[in-house]
Amino acid sequence: MNDDQLHAMRHSLAHITATAVKRLWPDAKFGIGPVVENGFYYDIDLGDTKISESDFKKIEKEMRRVVNQDQPFEHSTKQIDEAIAWALETNQPYKSELLNDLKRSGTTVAHDLDADEMGTITDGDAAMEQVGFYTNGDFTDLCRGPHVESTGKVGAFKLMRVAGAYWRGNEKNPQMQRLYGVAFATQEELDAHLNMLEQAKARDHRKLGKELDLYTTSPLVGIGLPMFTPRGTVLREVLSRYSNQLREQAGFEKVWIPHITKHELYETSGHWEKLGDELFLVTSQESNDKFVMKPMNCPHHTQIYASQPRSYRDMPVRYLETTTIYRDEKTGELGGLNRVRSATQDDSHVFARPDQIEDEVNGLLASAQELYASVGLELRVRLSYRDDSDAYLGEPELWQSAQAQLKSAVENNALEYFEQNGEAAFYGPKIDFMATDAIGREHQVATVQLDFVQPQRFGLQYTDAEGGFQAPVMIHCALLGSIERFLSVFIEHTAGWFPLWAAPEQVRILTINDTVLDYVEQIKAILAETVLMQPVKYNELRYSCDDRNESLGKKIREATGMKIPVQLIVGPKDKEAGTVSIRTQGGEETIRLDQLAEYLKTA
Amino acid sequence: MNDDQLHAMRHSLAHITATAVKRLWPDAKFGIGPVVENGFYYDIDLGDTKISESDFKKIEKEMRRVVNQDQPFEHSTKQIDEAIAWALETNQPYKSELLNDLKRSGTTVAHDLDADEMGTITDGDAAMEQVGFYTNGDFTDLCRGPHVESTGKVGAFKLMRVAGAYWRGNEKNPQMQRLYGVAFATQEELDAHLNMLEQAKARDHRKLGKELDLYTTSPLVGIGLPMFTPRGTVLREVLSRYSNQLREQAGFEKVWIPHITKHELYETSGHWEKLGDELFLVTSQESNDKFVMKPMNCPHHTQIYASQPRSYRDMPVRYLETTTIYRDEKTGELGGLNRVRSATQDDSHVFARPDQIEDEVNGLLASAQELYASVGLELRVRLSYRDDSDAYLGEPELWQSAQAQLKSAVENNALEYFEQNGEAAFYGPKIDFMATDAIGREHQVATVQLDFVQPQRFGLQYTDAEGGFQAPVMIHCALLGSIERFLSVFIEHTAGWFPLWAAPEQVRILTINDTVLDYVEQIKAILAETVLMQPVKYNELRYSCDDRNESLGKKIREATGMKIPVQLIVGPKDKEAGTVSIRTQGGEETIRLDQLAEYLKTA
Repeated sequence: MNDDQLHAMRHSLAHITATAVKRLWPDAKFGIGPVVENGFYYDIDLGDTKISESDFKKIEKEMRRVVNQDQPFEHSTKQIDEAIAWALETNQPYKSELLNDLKRSGTTVAHDLDADEMGTITDGDAAMEQVGFYTNGDFTDLCRGPHVESTGKVGAFKLMRVAGAYWRGNEKNPQMQRLYGVAFATQEELDAHLNMLEQAKARDHRKLGKELDLYTTSPLVGIGLPMFTPRGTVLREVLSRYSNQLREQAGFEKVWIPHITKHELYETSGHWEKLGDELFLVTSQESNDKFVMKPMNCPHHTQIYASQPRSYRDMPVRYLETTTIYRDEKTGELGGLNRVRSATQDDSHVFARPDQIEDEVNGLLASAQELYASVGLELRVRLSYRDDSDAYLGEPELWQSAQAQLKSAVENNALEYFEQNGEAAFYGPKIDFMATDAIGREHQVATVQLDFVQPQRFGLQYTDAEGGFQAPVMIHCALLGSIERFLSVFIEHTAGWFPLWAAPEQVRILTINDTVLDYVEQIKAILAETVLMQPVKYNELRYSCDDRNESLGKKIREATGMKIPVQLIVGPKDKEAGTVSIRTQGGEETIRLDQLAEYLKTA
Repeated sequence: MNDDQLHAMRHSLAHITATAVKRLWPDAKFGIGPVVENGFYYDIDLGDTKISESDFKKIEKEMRRVVNQDQPFEHSTKQIDEAIAWALETNQPYKSELLNDLKRSGTTVAHDLDADEMGTITDGDAAMEQVGFYTNGDFTDLCRGPHVESTGKVGAFKLMRVAGAYWRGNEKNPQMQRLYGVAFATQEELDAHLNMLEQAKARDHRKLGKELDLYTTSPLVGIGLPMFTPRGTVLREVLSRYSNQLREQAGFEKVWIPHITKHELYETSGHWEKLGDELFLVTSQESNDKFVMKPMNCPHHTQIYASQPRSYRDMPVRYLETTTIYRDEKTGELGGLNRVRSATQDDSHVFARPDQIEDEVNGLLASAQELYASVGLELRVRLSYRDDSDAYLGEPELWQSAQAQLKSAVENNALEYFEQNGEAAFYGPKIDFMATDAIGREHQVATVQLDFVQPQRFGLQYTDAEGGFQAPVMIHCALLGSIERFLSVFIEHTAGWFPLWAAPEQVRILTINDTVLDYVEQIKAILAETVLMQPVKYNELRYSCDDRNESLGKKIREATGMKIPVQLIVGPKDKEAGTVSIRTQGGEETIRLDQLAEYLKTA
C-alpha cells in the first residue's frame, strides 16, 4: 500500500469516527479531522458531555458497524452560500465558521488548518464558489477528500486517546475534545505499532532514568537542567571518552573554552542575530560587560585557531572538546533528557584546506560508523546540498567540490544514504546522521557540517605554499550530538540493558551464603585487575558484591531490576570447584575462575 | 634579625631616600613613606620633574652618602600647632594637611594611612597635642618611628621602581611619584631576593603561557576568560585526571551538574546573600526564570544526595566533579591564570556521619600529599579552628570532635602544620594547604573544609541504625583548587619544564639527516605503544618528530625553547648501533632502542 492510499484510509476513518460519534451523540458538533502520523483525529464538541477512554469500546463498535455497512464515499459540491446554509441547518457552527472564512478570504483559511482536511474551493478561478463534500450513509462532511471507495476499505484501526484542544489552537476559543486513533493497512501492522508503543512506554528514559538511578532534577535548580548521579555520569563519561578516543586516534587534539563570552563574539560570527531569543543573557554586577552563555562552541574555537599564525603545512588543525552549551528552550518543551537547557556536545572542529575536505570527512564518518555499530544503532545519512537559489554564501565552485567530496566520503564508507537539495545550511553542505533504534524509531543524532562563512567572518587564514593568505574551511562534527539527547535514545534503545563496556555497574557478585566470603575476595582481586580495552580503552571494571543475608532469588531480582549485565553467582560448589556461575540476559553458564578476566574482556 | 628590627631598618631607609631626594631636588614635597613587603616606598611631589629609573643610580649614590655619614636618628616632639607651622615653613603642604587632619580628628587620619608611618599624637589623653618627629642630619620628618639608631645601620638596599600614585589614593588629588625600594639585613639576602625576582620574571606564567602556546585570550570573548590550546589542555587534563584518580581509588564517584541554577538554590543554601555582587546573573528571554551561574558546586551536589533515601550503611557518599565555576572578579584584578572569571575546580564533596570525619580527611590528606609530591611542591597546612565567639553555627561538641579529628588526620599524615583559632568559616573548621614553590614563594592552593550548616539548610538526612533521621556532615575538598590558578603556580614553579608525565609534548625525535627515516619509524612504533602508568594511569605518550632539513643545532634549540623534556637525537651511528641518544635537562646519554620504553616509564 502506498502512502497516498494509507492517507486516504486514515482520512476516511476520521469521517467514520464522526459518523459513529454522531450516531451516539446526535448533537455532536464537529471541528476538523485531519490525518496525523500513524493515524488521524477529529475535534468534537459534545457540550457538557465528556468522552472518556471507557467510551472507546462503544465508539469503536459503532465504527465497525459503519465499516461493515461498506457505505460508499460519495463526492458532491455545493455553492459556498448553499454550503453555509447546510452548516446552519445541520447545526454545525464550526463548519459554518470555516465556510464563512473561506468565502471571505478564498484560500487563507487553509493556512491555519491542514488544507487537505477541509472542504476547499475547487480548482480554478471560475469555480471559486464551489465547495467539496463527501457523504457516507447518512453522514455528510465538508471535505476535499480523497477517500477510499467505501467504509469497508479502511484496514485496521484503534482509538488511542482523547484530549482537550482549543478550537483552532486559540485558548480564547471553546475547548473541544480531540479523539485520536491509529490506523494501518493490516491488523499485523497495527499490532506491531501497538506493540512498539507498549515497548516505548516500558523503555521511556524518564521512567528508566529514575529506576536505574541515572539522573535527577530539582525544582531549586530548574526545569531542563538535569543533574547526573554517579551511575548516569558513568554513561556520560564512557560515551564521551569513546567518542573522543575515536577522534584522537585520527589526530584531533582537545581544547578548552569557557561557557560564556562577550556578545561581541556572536556579533562577529553572525549568531547574535540568528539565535536572539534562544540565548541566555549574562550580566556582570561588577562591570558593564554584557555576556551570553555559549549556544555553540565554534566561535570560541576560531579564537584558538587565530591565536597562532598557520601555514598550509600545519593544516588541518583539529580541535576536540566535550563541553556544555546553553539554549533557552521553551519551558513547555522541556522534559527528560530529550530536550534540555544544558546540552553537552562531543564537539569538534577541523580547520582544513579545501582539498582536505574529503579525507577529513572520511575519517569522521568511519568514526561515526564504529561508534554507532558499538551501541547497536543502525545508521543512514542524509546528504544535504544547496539548491539553485541565491540563499547560500560562499563560492559556487567551492560548494560543488565540497558536495562531491562529501558524497565520495559517504560512498567510501559504504553508508546507506539519500540526497536532498535545498537542505544545506546557508554556510555550507552537511551530512545528517539518522539512527534507527531497537523498536524501529528513527532519531537524528549527529551531523558533519561544512562551513565556508565563519572562517571569513573571523578573518581566519593560513599561508599557502606561495606565501599568500587563504581562508580555511571549517568542518563541524559531533558524533553523539548532545550527550543528553543521545542518552535518551541509548536508554530507550537498550531498555536500560547497556552493553557491558557502557553499563554503570558491569558485574555484581551474588553470594549464596557466607561460607564463600574468602572465595569472593579472590574473585574481587581478579575483577579489580581487569581492564576492558574494547571498544573504549582503559575501561576499568565497575563491580560490586551483594553478600547480604538475603535469598539468592531476591538478590537476582534486584540485580536484574538494576539491569546488571553480568551477575556472578557464587555458592559453596563454585568455591570447591574453583568456578563461577555467570548469569546474563543470554542465560547462565559456569566457567573456571581463571577464565573470568578473559570472558569479560571478550564479552 | 627579628621582624621589628627589619621593619625599623626599612622605615629608616624611607627617611634616607627622602633625605637623598631632598638633597638632589631641594623643592621636593613629601607625602608618606611606609614599610611594605620586602621594602619601603616614599611618595614624592617634584612638580614637573619626573624621576625615572635612570635617576636611581644618582639617588642611591646620595643615599649611600647619607648611610656612610652614619647620622643618628633623633626623636623629638612638637605641639601640634608648632608642627603645622614647621610644615608651612619648610614648604611641606602634604605634611601640613596630615597635621591639620590630625588636629581636627585626633586619630582618624591614621585610618586611611599606615598608622606606623606618620607622626601621630603621643599616647594618653593628656599628651593629645604632642606630635613626634625624627631628625637625621639636616633632614627632619614627621614620624612616629621606630628607627634604627643611625643611618649607618640599614643593611642592604636597592631602589626598584617608580610609579604614579594619587595623594591618599584619591584620583581627584595631585599625582605624586612613588619611589619603591627593597631592603634586607645582609647583601646576601638582598641578592637572593633580587635573584628570586629575576627568576620570577623569567618564569612569569603569562610569558611562558604564550611562549609554550598553553593558552590564549580574545577581546571578543573577554578578559578573565582564558581559552586553552591543545598544549595547555593536556596540562589541564592530566592534572585533573591525576586528582580524580587519587580520589576514585578512595571510593569517590563522578557526578555531573549544569553551570547554572535558579537563584532559589542559593537562597536555600544562604550563598545568595553572601556572594551578592560576585554572582553572574543569567536572564531567560523565553520565561521569567532568573538564573545565576554557579560560583560553587556544593548546593547542586546536595540535590543529587537528596535524590535518594540514604541509610547509615550507605555513608559516606562521595561525589567528585571537575567543573567550572564563574565569579565576577573585578576587571582590574584579572590577568593571566592567577585570577579568572571562569575557574575550573577539581571539586569533591563527602556526605559523612560525624564519626567518619577523620577517616575521610585522612584519605584526602594522603591524596594531597601524593599529588603535591609528584609536582614537587612542598606542602604545609594550616588548621583553622573556631574561637570562643558566638559567630559559629553548629553544635559545640560537633566542633570539638571535628577539630580533634582534623588534627589527628594531619598528624597521621605527618604533615607540617600550624593551628589558628578564629580562622574557621562560620559553618565549620578547615585545613588550608600552602605550597612552597621552587623559588621560595608560598601559595595557598587547596582546602579541606567541614560544613555543618548546608546539610541542615537543605534538610539532608540519613537514617541511623535505630531508624531515626540524622544530618550528615559535608566535607568540601579540591586537591588542586582552581586548575587555572594551580597552573599559574605549576608553570612558574617548573619554569615550563614540566615533569615527563605532565608535559604537553613529552618526547621529540630530532633527526640528524634523512638516512635515518626508516629507523625513526621503528622508534615511533615503540613510542606509540608506550603508556605511562605513574603517577597518572593510562598516560599515552605524546611525541612528535622533527625531520626537517635543518641543522641539529637549530632543532635542539627549538625543542629546548619549547621545553620538551626528552629529546631523542637520532643519527646514522644510532641507526647502525640500534641506539638512541637521549637529551634531557640532566644531560645526554645513549641507550639501546629496546630499553627506550622502560626508560620512559621509569623516568
